[in-house]
Amino acid sequence: MEDTIAAISTASGEAGIGIIRISGTESLQKALMIYETKNGKKVTRLQDRRLTYGKIMDPHTGKMIDEALVCYMKAPHTYTTEDVVEIQCHGGYISLKRIMEALLDQGVRSAEPGEFTKRAFLSGRLDLSQAEAVMDLIGSKTDLSHEAALGQLEGFLSGKVKKMREELLDLMAAMEVSIDFSEEEDIDEVTFEDVYEKTIPIMDDIQWLIDSAKTGKIIREGLKTVIIGKPNVGKSSLMNALLKESRAIVTDIPGTTRDVIEEQLNLRGIPLVLMDTAGIRDTEDVVEKMGVERAKQLFDQADLVMMMLDASTPVTSEEVALLNMVQKRKALIIINKTDLPSVLDESSLPEWIDSDQILKLSLLESSGLLQLEEALENLVYDGEKNAREKEMVTHLRHQQALEKAYDSLKEGVKALESRMPLDFVQVDYQEAMDQLGAIIGESVKEDLIDHIFSNFCIGK
Amino acid sequence: MEDTIAAISTASGEAGIGIIRISGTESLQKALMIYETKNGKKVTRLQDRRLTYGKIMDPHTGKMIDEALVCYMKAPHTYTTEDVVEIQCHGGYISLKRIMEALLDQGVRSAEPGEFTKRAFLSGRLDLSQAEAVMDLIGSKTDLSHEAALGQLEGFLSGKVKKMREELLDLMAAMEVSIDFSEEEDIDEVTFEDVYEKTIPIMDDIQWLIDSAKTGKIIREGLKTVIIGKPNVGKSSLMNALLKESRAIVTDIPGTTRDVIEEQLNLRGIPLVLMDTAGIRDTEDVVEKMGVERAKQLFDQADLVMMMLDASTPVTSEEVALLNMVQKRKALIIINKTDLPSVLDESSLPEWIDSDQILKLSLLESSGLLQLEEALENLVYDGEKNAREKEMVTHLRHQQALEKAYDSLKEGVKALESRMPLDFVQVDYQEAMDQLGAIIGESVKEDLIDHIFSNFCIGK
Repeated sequence: MEDTIAAISTASGEAGIGIIRISGTESLQKALMIYETKNGKKVTRLQDRRLTYGKIMDPHTGKMIDEALVCYMKAPHTYTTEDVVEIQCHGGYISLKRIMEALLDQGVRSAEPGEFTKRAFLSGRLDLSQAEAVMDLIGSKTDLSHEAALGQLEGFLSGKVKKMREELLDLMAAMEVSIDFSEEEDIDEVTFEDVYEKTIPIMDDIQWLIDSAKTGKIIREGLKTVIIGKPNVGKSSLMNALLKESRAIVTDIPGTTRDVIEEQLNLRGIPLVLMDTAGIRDTEDVVEKMGVERAKQLFDQADLVMMMLDASTPVTSEEVALLNMVQKRKALIIINKTDLPSVLDESSLPEWIDSDQILKLSLLESSGLLQLEEALENLVYDGEKNAREKEMVTHLRHQQALEKAYDSLKEGVKALESRMPLDFVQVDYQEAMDQLGAIIGESVKEDLIDHIFSNFCIGK
Repeated sequence: MEDTIAAISTASGEAGIGIIRISGTESLQKALMIYETKNGKKVTRLQDRRLTYGKIMDPHTGKMIDEALVCYMKAPHTYTTEDVVEIQCHGGYISLKRIMEALLDQGVRSAEPGEFTKRAFLSGRLDLSQAEAVMDLIGSKTDLSHEAALGQLEGFLSGKVKKMREELLDLMAAMEVSIDFSEEEDIDEVTFEDVYEKTIPIMDDIQWLIDSAKTGKIIREGLKTVIIGKPNVGKSSLMNALLKESRAIVTDIPGTTRDVIEEQLNLRGIPLVLMDTAGIRDTEDVVEKMGVERAKQLFDQADLVMMMLDASTPVTSEEVALLNMVQKRKALIIINKTDLPSVLDESSLPEWIDSDQILKLSLLESSGLLQLEEALENLVYDGEKNAREKEMVTHLRHQQALEKAYDSLKEGVKALESRMPLDFVQVDYQEAMDQLGAIIGESVKEDLIDHIFSNFCIGK
């Protein structure tokens, strides 16, 4: 039997409403210790799922802490599958703090981060990828990342993984029969070809999921982007133009990096994390002051490099050095100042980068921005925007498990092809099963589960 | 008929739960436009006050926005006295934003700050001082300010004001009778003495409330405190010691002042706002660098000045200049470094300040801090700590109305004493009535009401 836990489940700050959630066998009993009706009466029960107005009292002093709406939700159809009580009070710091204190006084334990969701997982109401989706949903900063999280919560990934696991299990059972009864005559022996032919579509499905992770991870985590170029090429103008185009500047991230400032924006649903150094925007001297070495450090952190060139000047030797670095990266070359007479020799650029990654624009005349947005979108979606929608692998953990499952099946298929004994093949199939199982939380170690939930917020 | 409004009623940030509140005649109808059951069915009603699990859908795309618990609360026993619907969804930015957008799409209006509470006031469920208490409750940073707000919400002030208004109304009615029927014989004429004798206790009550505002306003707003003294006298050590003693550092206030940093702490329930200048803590050179003129600016903002002296050195001329300024203010003199041989001549200090406001301590030896806390407490409570508890006037607006009511009654009593005609007296009593009425929101102008509610947070 799990103990009874409680936490503040709304964000902190001054607001109309704050909620404390209690979960566990003794939720109702503990909540009633600090509850009385508006007429000052103690009660021994609360109607299931009915929002009831009353007072939260401090049992020590007998004084009211706050007015509240209280709701008891009887197990098992609750978030945690346990008995749950929600206390809605005024959304201030002191009300929430004092109600929590009163509950802890009654022997309720303060919930750890993600502990409510962990209980939902341990009880089987959510699988691990769905539990992870809960946090993604809460943390999503754009409509697209929200959609992807919803899809995962609704079970798109779980469904696919479970189906593949069932198919693999069938194949393994068939192999088992062939191994155990291979001497007997009236058993339908599974053939190497059967197994092979049924494995390939599973591998294709896995590959499809792995491919989706490229976009999916960007959608979830944002595309870390750095803008580089020589002084006065228009880096800050580009940054400002992108900020203006973005549907919503979600938030600044204060103090996340030492000398790099990040600005999050939402460009056509893609969370773009523009990385800037304190110096770049003010002095426009990335090459001079920071040097190629420093720019390289920024490169290493970035998912995407936008390198700006000036259409009205020839390419400098510093720029060639940067282009050499850009060559190996996901990058866009942006030629600015097309409003001025053209001096830059573009013919050499394809030496470093594909021509469809070269864009020309004039920030002064606000031309070419639409094309830039489209190029960004193409880079992220790899030209397959509408194919995916909500069905994307968004976690590195899932991607890695899928890759390992794929590799194991590849080994298995290879063993089949070389007519190795089925016992050998089975080992690979079992490994693939386990890897797929890890995604949904089957066959995973407790410390991985603890680690995943420790990244949740308190109160969820 | 009021239109239907909605707002996010929980604080913004990533959290387990977020709430959108809808209020107005069409709350249920509008909410049902975007709601369907977990099985994907539309419904035409929701059970009153029952928390029901379902899905919030985007009517345009037919796609789910989030899972939610929805609760319909039928008028009139709701926060606003109107039909209310609460939608509990995942506490992320996008879920809340998209549900709000879907509601606005259905013709629901985005609520203005404080509009839910304003509706509770306009419908008569809360009077104006109670409505103000709602925001105080949410904004309270210490248990004491929370208690004071609760007391006001429960109607301590309203009750007192209403009782006094009734008594004044009785007196005015009696005077009316005397005026109208003074020629007739069988009317019990009210005597000047009667009115006088019944007015004095009312004035005493008002005075008691005015007196409580001194503590009450500090409890609600915090005590703005500045620490001054010459370099190396121990200002930063004192600041750190107080921070350590405080039960909870509630919050830093970022960017509230230009060059003054504020640090809020909770010392025995008193919200202390320590005002510091960027320079003081690092360089300890308030007198040298800031000069007396600058210190004076800080003085002007402060409710309390703590001036520090060094027990091991004589008083300097700069310190005498500061002492001259301190003389006219609520202040404490703190003599630090009592662990060193005593050099400072204390005998001259009472020239500037009462001896019970002079404290000796050694921050090095951590001695004398308790006495400092007590002295602070005495200053705030004026030695009457336990008399008041929850019954305090905490708003300047209320205090000023009480003062005006008192003055009007004083005029009225003066008129009675000089046997002026009762018509004259009545004018003063009416003014006192109106002033008291303003506290609870009777006889107030609409723009005052708008102004008060505009300071509320959105969603309350």
